[in-house]
Amino acid sequence: MVGQRIIRVAVNGYGVIGKRVAQAVAVQKDMAVAGVADVAQDWRVRAALSRGYALYGATEEHAVAMGAAGLDVSGTLDDLLEAADIVVDCTPKHLASKNIETYRRLGIRFIVHGGEKHQSTGHSFVAEANYASAVGRDCTRVVSCNTTSIIRTLSALKRHGLLDRARGTLLRRATDPWESHQGGIMNTVVPEPEIPSHQGPDAQSVDPDLDVVTMAVKVPETLAHLHYWSVQLTREASKDEVLDAFRTSSRIVFLRNSDGLSAINSVKELMADLGRPHDSLYEVALWEDMLKVQGNELFYAYMVDNQAIVVPETIDAIRALTGAEPDAETSIRDTNDSLGIGSLGL
Amino acid sequence: MVGQRIIRVAVNGYGVIGKRVAQAVAVQKDMAVAGVADVAQDWRVRAALSRGYALYGATEEHAVAMGAAGLDVSGTLDDLLEAADIVVDCTPKHLASKNIETYRRLGIRFIVHGGEKHQSTGHSFVAEANYASAVGRDCTRVVSCNTTSIIRTLSALKRHGLLDRARGTLLRRATDPWESHQGGIMNTVVPEPEIPSHQGPDAQSVDPDLDVVTMAVKVPETLAHLHYWSVQLTREASKDEVLDAFRTSSRIVFLRNSDGLSAINSVKELMADLGRPHDSLYEVALWEDMLKVQGNELFYAYMVDNQAIVVPETIDAIRALTGAEPDAETSIRDTNDSLGIGSLGL
Repeated sequence: MVGQRIIRVAVNGYGVIGKRVAQAVAVQKDMAVAGVADVAQDWRVRAALSRGYALYGATEEHAVAMGAAGLDVSGTLDDLLEAADIVVDCTPKHLASKNIETYRRLGIRFIVHGGEKHQSTGHSFVAEANYASAVGRDCTRVVSCNTTSIIRTLSALKRHGLLDRARGTLLRRATDPWESHQGGIMNTVVPEPEIPSHQGPDAQSVDPDLDVVTMAVKVPETLAHLHYWSVQLTREASKDEVLDAFRTSSRIVFLRNSDGLSAINSVKELMADLGRPHDSLYEVALWEDMLKVQGNELFYAYMVDNQAIVVPETIDAIRALTGAEPDAETSIRDTNDSLGIGSLGL
Repeated sequence: MVGQRIIRVAVNGYGVIGKRVAQAVAVQKDMAVAGVADVAQDWRVRAALSRGYALYGATEEHAVAMGAAGLDVSGTLDDLLEAADIVVDCTPKHLASKNIETYRRLGIRFIVHGGEKHQSTGHSFVAEANYASAVGRDCTRVVSCNTTSIIRTLSALKRHGLLDRARGTLLRRATDPWESHQGGIMNTVVPEPEIPSHQGPDAQSVDPDLDVVTMAVKVPETLAHLHYWSVQLTREASKDEVLDAFRTSSRIVFLRNSDGLSAINSVKELMADLGRPHDSLYEVALWEDMLKVQGNELFYAYMVDNQAIVVPETIDAIRALTGAEPDAETSIRDTNDSLGIGSLGL
C-alpha cells in the first residue's frame, strides 16, 4: 500500500451489492466503512446496524422515518458524504443518475454500477483490463456482472493473442434470491427480446476492440448466471494453451465435473462450505473438463454469481480512484487475498 | 395418395411420443392404428383403451398382468405385429434395440426414434431433408426432437445457399411434464458435461455435410427446449432473405414478441387455444422479431416442443417406408393438413 491513510468509504444503498461491498470494504486493511445510506426501515437496514455500520437516511424524510421506526440513524446521505473520501453507489438501476448530481455538488469521488450507462461516468472499469486508466479519476462505473465476466475471460484470451471473436449465449437467473417471493418466473424460459443483447456492446465500453456478440435468456432459477461461449481463435491452439491464457486472470477459477461440481447449486454450496460471506463466488467459475478446442474454435461454459462478481472490482476501483494504490497488480492481489479469491480448495 | 389401401400401424410404447403418434395416425386418411403395446397397467394404458385403440401386452407376462388388472387385452406384441404393416417403436431410450430383433424376425417394417443410434437402422430421417432415400426401406430412425429442429432450420438455410457453419446453445427442458413429480431439477441449471453435445453429430447422421456444433444445458422447466444459434453465412444477406430461406420449410413458424408471445409458456397456451391435441407444437417456432443478421452472421432463437416435433416426421416416415407415397411433398402436405401444421392463426 502507498501511504497509511485509511480510505473512508460510503456505501449508498444497502441491497444485494451494497451489503457485499460494505463487508468487503470492512475486511480491507486500507479501508473503513464510513457508513451506509438507504431508504428502508425494516430488517434490511437493521442487519446493517447489527454489523456495526453507521446508518444514514437517503434523504431527510428517510432519516426521520428510520428514527420513527426506532433505528439508530446517524444523519442523512449528505452527512455521510461529508465524512467519506469516496462513495460507492449501490442503489437500484437508473437511480444513480440523480445521486451523481449530489456527488458532484459535494465534490466527492464516486463509483456507480452496471445498471448505469457508460456516459454517466465516462469510464467503465474492470480491474484486470483498465485499472491504470481509472487512477486519480473522479468517478468510474464498475460494469455489470455479466460484462465483468466477459471482460475477464476475453481479455485473458486476448492477452495470449488467441482472441479473434466471441459469440455467447447467456442464461440469466430470473431474480435475486431474497426477493424471489415477490415475483419471478416458473417453469418457463423467457428470451430477451433483443438480439444481440446489451452485454456485448457493454463489454466494448471497457475494451472497444472486442468483437463480441451476446444473446440472453431468463431461466427459472435465482442462483447465478451461466454463459456458453463459441470463440473463434486467431489460430489453432491446444486446450492447455487456452487454459494457460485463462490462468493469466487471478479471478477465473476452474471447476470439474469429476469433483462433483456438475451444476450451479453445488458450486454455491461449496462457497458456503468455504465460509465465504453470503456464499459469494467472486470468480468466474469455468468448467475445465467441459472446455473444448476444435481446430481454431473454442467452446466453454462458466458460472457468474451476479451478486458477488463485481465486489472485488469495486474494491479495486476504490483504490484506483482515490489514488491510494497506483499499481493494478498490487491492488488486485490485496483484494484477492482479503476475500479468498482464487482458491476453491479443490 | 398412391393406392387406396389403409396402412395398419402398430405403436409399441404408449408414452409421450407413442400417444401422440397414435393420435396423429388416427387422423390420417391413409392410416389406421392397428393397436398399441405397452407394459403399464395403470391410467396410461386405460387412456389408450378409452381412445378406442386395441391394447396389447409387450410380452405374455405383461398381457397377463393387464388382464388381471381388468384391462381389455387383445394379445401380445407379436399378435399386434401380425396385424400390422409397420410398427413405430416408441419405447424408452435404448429399449428398441432388443425390439428390433423381434421386428426383423417377423419381417415387419419398423421406425425407431432418436434415443436409438443411427446404426440401429442405418438411416436417419427428417422428411424435408431425405424422405426419398427412405422410400421402400425396411426401417428408419426418426431423429430426436432437437436434431429434427436442427435439420429443419439448417437445411432451409442450406437450400438457399446461405449456410456456412452453425453453432448452437440448447436449453433443454429438465423432464417431461407428466413425470416431473418423480424427479426433476429446481432452481438450478445443469450443464451437459460433454462439449460438443451429441446433437451436432446426430444431425450429421441425416446430412453429413453440415458444419454444426452444439452445447446443451438442462433448465428447470418442463415445457419445451429453446435453442440459440450463431450461424456463419456464406455471404452477407438481408433479414428478408433469411426469413425467405426459413419459409422454404413448411414446419417452421414465426413468432413475434409483439403478438404477446414472449416466452415458451405463452406459446404452449396458444397451442391449447388452437385445440391441438396435447397442446402440441409440431413446428419449430422461431422468433422472427428477435432474429438478427449482422453482415454475414445470423443470430436467432427458437422453441422445440420435444414431445411433439417428431410426430409429423413419424407420419411421413410411415408413408415413405411402406411406399404408400413416394413423393415427399405430397406426404408432408397431407401430414401438415391433417395436424394443422404451419398456421398459428396469428
